[in-house]
Amino acid sequence: MNIEIPYKIYLEESEMPKQWYNVRADMKNKPAPILNPATLKPVTVEELSPIFCTELAKQELDETTPYFDIPEEIREFYKMYRPAPLVRAYCLEKKLGTPAHIYYKFEGNNTSGSHKLNSAIAQAYYAKKQGLKGVTTETGAGQWGTALSMACSYFDLDCQVYMVKVSYEQKPFRREVMRTYGAQVTPSPSMKTEVGRKINAEFPGTTGSLGCAISEAVEAATTQEGYRYVLGSVLSQVLIHQTVIGLETKAALDKYGIKADMIIGCAGGGSNLGGLISPFAGEILRGEADYDIIAVEPASCPSLTRGRYAYDYCDTGKICPLAKMYTLGSGFIPSPNHAGGLRYHGMSSIVSQLYDDGIITARSVEQTEVFKAAEMFARVEGILPAPESSHAIKVAIDEALKCKETGEEKNIVFGLTGTGYFDMVAYQKYNDGEMSDYIPTDEELEKSFATLPKVE
Amino acid sequence: MNIEIPYKIYLEESEMPKQWYNVRADMKNKPAPILNPATLKPVTVEELSPIFCTELAKQELDETTPYFDIPEEIREFYKMYRPAPLVRAYCLEKKLGTPAHIYYKFEGNNTSGSHKLNSAIAQAYYAKKQGLKGVTTETGAGQWGTALSMACSYFDLDCQVYMVKVSYEQKPFRREVMRTYGAQVTPSPSMKTEVGRKINAEFPGTTGSLGCAISEAVEAATTQEGYRYVLGSVLSQVLIHQTVIGLETKAALDKYGIKADMIIGCAGGGSNLGGLISPFAGEILRGEADYDIIAVEPASCPSLTRGRYAYDYCDTGKICPLAKMYTLGSGFIPSPNHAGGLRYHGMSSIVSQLYDDGIITARSVEQTEVFKAAEMFARVEGILPAPESSHAIKVAIDEALKCKETGEEKNIVFGLTGTGYFDMVAYQKYNDGEMSDYIPTDEELEKSFATLPKVE
Repeated sequence: MNIEIPYKIYLEESEMPKQWYNVRADMKNKPAPILNPATLKPVTVEELSPIFCTELAKQELDETTPYFDIPEEIREFYKMYRPAPLVRAYCLEKKLGTPAHIYYKFEGNNTSGSHKLNSAIAQAYYAKKQGLKGVTTETGAGQWGTALSMACSYFDLDCQVYMVKVSYEQKPFRREVMRTYGAQVTPSPSMKTEVGRKINAEFPGTTGSLGCAISEAVEAATTQEGYRYVLGSVLSQVLIHQTVIGLETKAALDKYGIKADMIIGCAGGGSNLGGLISPFAGEILRGEADYDIIAVEPASCPSLTRGRYAYDYCDTGKICPLAKMYTLGSGFIPSPNHAGGLRYHGMSSIVSQLYDDGIITARSVEQTEVFKAAEMFARVEGILPAPESSHAIKVAIDEALKCKETGEEKNIVFGLTGTGYFDMVAYQKYNDGEMSDYIPTDEELEKSFATLPKVE
Repeated sequence: MNIEIPYKIYLEESEMPKQWYNVRADMKNKPAPILNPATLKPVTVEELSPIFCTELAKQELDETTPYFDIPEEIREFYKMYRPAPLVRAYCLEKKLGTPAHIYYKFEGNNTSGSHKLNSAIAQAYYAKKQGLKGVTTETGAGQWGTALSMACSYFDLDCQVYMVKVSYEQKPFRREVMRTYGAQVTPSPSMKTEVGRKINAEFPGTTGSLGCAISEAVEAATTQEGYRYVLGSVLSQVLIHQTVIGLETKAALDKYGIKADMIIGCAGGGSNLGGLISPFAGEILRGEADYDIIAVEPASCPSLTRGRYAYDYCDTGKICPLAKMYTLGSGFIPSPNHAGGLRYHGMSSIVSQLYDDGIITARSVEQTEVFKAAEMFARVEGILPAPESSHAIKVAIDEALKCKETGEEKNIVFGLTGTGYFDMVAYQKYNDGEMSDYIPTDEELEKSFATLPKVE
């Protein structure tokens, strides 16, 4: 390689993707259809429309169109914080003494602090276009809620956020960012919705879960005139919007003639991972190239590595459609010492199918190791990473150290989905030596699997 | 203008400045020399060397060398987060309906969240090169302490930070970021130093001041073997390092053939402002061009607009050299409702002289108006700004609205020095309608001026 690779590869605005990529079009084994929870039959756009914006419902169910045009208004918004840089981690490579070349796609260069804005602005756009008054949503670590608040503020839509109680309490500043963008933030489970009151009665003192917050947000959307529900991960529509990450990454690599050997991403609901890897997975599916793709998840919430591939509810309240996915059961709640996001019980149906077909692999890591990797990364690369993103860092470092042993000059690409500026409570625990790990026992998982619905 | 201006102008790494600019070389009226507090005679490099790294002491006193080479190691570090984008504020222009073209140089794209890193890495580099064990410093809003922690971690130097008590309490997360980078953070005034104990005894319950924290840090540096003191603003050396901001800004404007009409920056100690405007002020001084340069300061800490141009102590403890500057007196402490930084009693001697000579003008603004501008900016431009930076936003908006009245298509450039992610306590006050303003009375300022030393 004779071309000098800069620290940060920025595409020109003219090189930014004009379409999102729908990897399902290239999948021989399509993800199983999502089911109407009332009929257990595949849902239709009409059935989804009371919950989701119609255009988004169409994207959700479209398995054959390979590309969707990114509307002009969304592309204009993207230009405020995109293209995101693909960074060559020269300092990390030096610190590790590895012959590997490490690259990361940094999605934290915006006030929401993560990639979530990529889909938030798309969903807000379609809501506005449909003439809605506002949207409701849930948020876990708070990145999605912040992103949606920003997007709604831009399009002058009302924004109601149900925030998992444990995050709401650990992250008061997240709430204020959302409020600054005009959003209304409610800790979940709340007493505002029927499902929230029910969960509070059944599990007094619960710190909440993403599944439960989803149920509340969906109820709020369907009981208010002119509102729809929007979701920050898991759904195929979200994964599609997030392909802007992978498409930019691929364009930046291609620009410098770099062939990735390995692509690593953290996996919670699966949309950032799916967005990052889609263009690469597409090449594998079409037989054009080969990549080693690794999804990294917390050992405390191991849906891919220890979950069942089965139909499950997407929410604790069981009012959303059912999806076939790798899941721990919708009753699963991570142990209270689990810091940050990646706490969802299931996994995107697209990612699940790609995993089941062996197109991607998965690993689980413990959080103390993850924060150790995060600290090292912060010190040498100058970016304090989100706990979520640090799962990918941990495995990227592991792989780079393997290359050190073997002498291989692999090109390792990972997704740095966001910054950890609002995760300082977790960092403080780590700094104080008070962080602990938790791996659910088989018995605990069995108990949680028992919440899986009987569907064939 | 036929060239289309992108949302974000990024220079290539090869276009990044290789030298810092020392505007004093082009000033006919040089800033008055800084004085040894013991002798009241101009200090020498030798006299400064027990406090500052020798190379930095040289930069401090050098009034004639127009450019200093940026050492290779610093340029490599700069590449981790620079070049910083010059952003065309298309969305803000649209929101305001102004014919003006608004540009901002965004320095918040790094974990310290501000421009402070530009000088922190330079000062850490020279300390390391001199073989020191570590450095001490003060921090107000916490941006400087964070930046220095990052820089010290990179060069493996010990870092001791005295943090103004009010900020320490309002910003616990800042402390954790610094700790993550390995720094030791102490609220000031502390009981660790003689000057701290004295101030605590004299003003029980004081929330601290930057001047007082400086005194503690200087004492800590001079009483420990192998330590020196480093400072995040005010000094000429810091302003010189910050010219990387102005040089990049000018290069980006030149690249697209844009002639700035107006350059606006917030002013606390004056180094970011000085760094931004230096290349432009240099052109004015050399008679090559004309610009309308505006320094914006808080009405609650109005050193330029209501201060005296006089010799003053740089620190409350009166152990640092004296500088001739626009000052409110080293005994000045902003009222407790003052949010964020820009709380220093004086102003960079370079900026002071440029102001006294009419090369730049100054305005003061009240913080409630500043947060209103910050909120508007955040909502349309997608970046939640630091309270400090928002002073510049406020005046940029005012000027853009004047253009709306006159129809002028002015090119307005302002410095967006950082993000407000660690300022959510202040934003919360604003969101809750509990923010208040305070303008010191003439009597209060007179009392504070009484602390000025008698020097001729």
